[in-house]
Amino acid sequence: MTRIVCRQIAPRVGDLAANHERMLRTIAEATAAGADILVLPELASSGYVFASRTEVDTCAIPSRDPLIAAWSAAIQGPSVVVCGYAERGDDGAVYNSAVVLDSGGVLADYRKAHLWDREKLFFTPGTGRPPVVETRFGRIGVLICYDLEFPEYTRRIALDGADLIAVPTNWPHVRVPEGERPPEVVIAQAAARVNRVTIACCDRTGTERGQRWTEGTAIVDHNGWIVSAAGGSHVASAETDLIEGRDKAITPRNHLFADRRTDLY
Amino acid sequence: MTRIVCRQIAPRVGDLAANHERMLRTIAEATAAGADILVLPELASSGYVFASRTEVDTCAIPSRDPLIAAWSAAIQGPSVVVCGYAERGDDGAVYNSAVVLDSGGVLADYRKAHLWDREKLFFTPGTGRPPVVETRFGRIGVLICYDLEFPEYTRRIALDGADLIAVPTNWPHVRVPEGERPPEVVIAQAAARVNRVTIACCDRTGTERGQRWTEGTAIVDHNGWIVSAAGGSHVASAETDLIEGRDKAITPRNHLFADRRTDLY
Repeated sequence: MTRIVCRQIAPRVGDLAANHERMLRTIAEATAAGADILVLPELASSGYVFASRTEVDTCAIPSRDPLIAAWSAAIQGPSVVVCGYAERGDDGAVYNSAVVLDSGGVLADYRKAHLWDREKLFFTPGTGRPPVVETRFGRIGVLICYDLEFPEYTRRIALDGADLIAVPTNWPHVRVPEGERPPEVVIAQAAARVNRVTIACCDRTGTERGQRWTEGTAIVDHNGWIVSAAGGSHVASAETDLIEGRDKAITPRNHLFADRRTDLY
Repeated sequence: MTRIVCRQIAPRVGDLAANHERMLRTIAEATAAGADILVLPELASSGYVFASRTEVDTCAIPSRDPLIAAWSAAIQGPSVVVCGYAERGDDGAVYNSAVVLDSGGVLADYRKAHLWDREKLFFTPGTGRPPVVETRFGRIGVLICYDLEFPEYTRRIALDGADLIAVPTNWPHVRVPEGERPPEVVIAQAAARVNRVTIACCDRTGTERGQRWTEGTAIVDHNGWIVSAAGGSHVASAETDLIEGRDKAITPRNHLFADRRTDLY
């Protein structure tokens, strides 16, 4: 069994130093407290509601930056951390990225492919498929926020072997009917169920320039059921069997992947 | 606004004559009572839990059968009906099919592409894409039961222009955590939301050879919210705007279809 933890922190827009300190603290605390896999929000190092391109620029760091090495070094024990950050590419472009780390360094890097609204003013979309990283806990895939809303993409990463999809997010608050879950969580539940893959979405908190967040952090098991949601606590945490979902047979005659009719779509 | 109605009837396995009478009655009643679009369950004419291939054979009818002409003739006014039946193809094979009817006759026919469990013993899977039928109420697409669990397929029919996906189903009962919706309904909600398409799932009732049903009949709007669920009443009914979901723009910079990264999947 694997302990997955999502910590719904509150980055501060444009304040790389403060965000870095918060990330160091959170990573050290959560991994010392037994998180095997820790997920932090999208753009945890930079905040989200940028006023200008310059503001993004001042927070963007390359994946080989000493700050990222420090996040890695803050990991206690054999844990794996997935977190979002603003990346400066070697091409000079800025990406909305996420990194997979263990205490030895960067295991994988990913650039968000589907940009949301004003992100299109500040970021360049990624051109590579999401990584699926073999770890001692299972195979960890990474998507970022709006990426999750493309079922072709969750299918792709499941076909690529992900046992867990870690999803750093910043979900802007939307109106939801009384008693309903956030729509992004419903989408995660469906993606988890039709692919038998565990999904851990880590949202953020902390109103930023008037923007509220859904605070919808949730861990969904490979049957599509929510096993932990942050609610007011800003932490989701669940012991899960990441490997069970590898078996895609759901009846003696049905297999989620083999049943696909790729001749029709 | 369009009145969509799902009638969660109880077919009797192998009893074509009784099922036919029930369908005639239900179609006449519901369309006289103001259903613009009426959806009936999967295999409404044949029942589901077949003991043998012979039993299926005795219920299978071609789409030009006088019984189907009678369902069409039972429609009161300009309504459209979508219902499931066991179809005998010209090739002699038996299909798990659905037909779209108005009072003038058959508008479209569809053969289920993704067969569930023991259906594979009795039916031949369809080889054609699902229809999208232009009607006075909007464009109606048809999927059957397990078809809905393939997000590539709901995307495909949405891209093909469906405003409504009518889904005749027979959902075998599965255990669901306290307070949760049936997983198929969650999948329908997600598919509706990511495609901005209305989905009307008509399940069945009536325990058959020990098989219970989810009785999960639900109408989901193009934002993914449930606007009517049958519950104990066996009827779901909702006035919906089928056309609003044609606009796939969800922010000034985001469009559900244009944002797809078909270079990555």
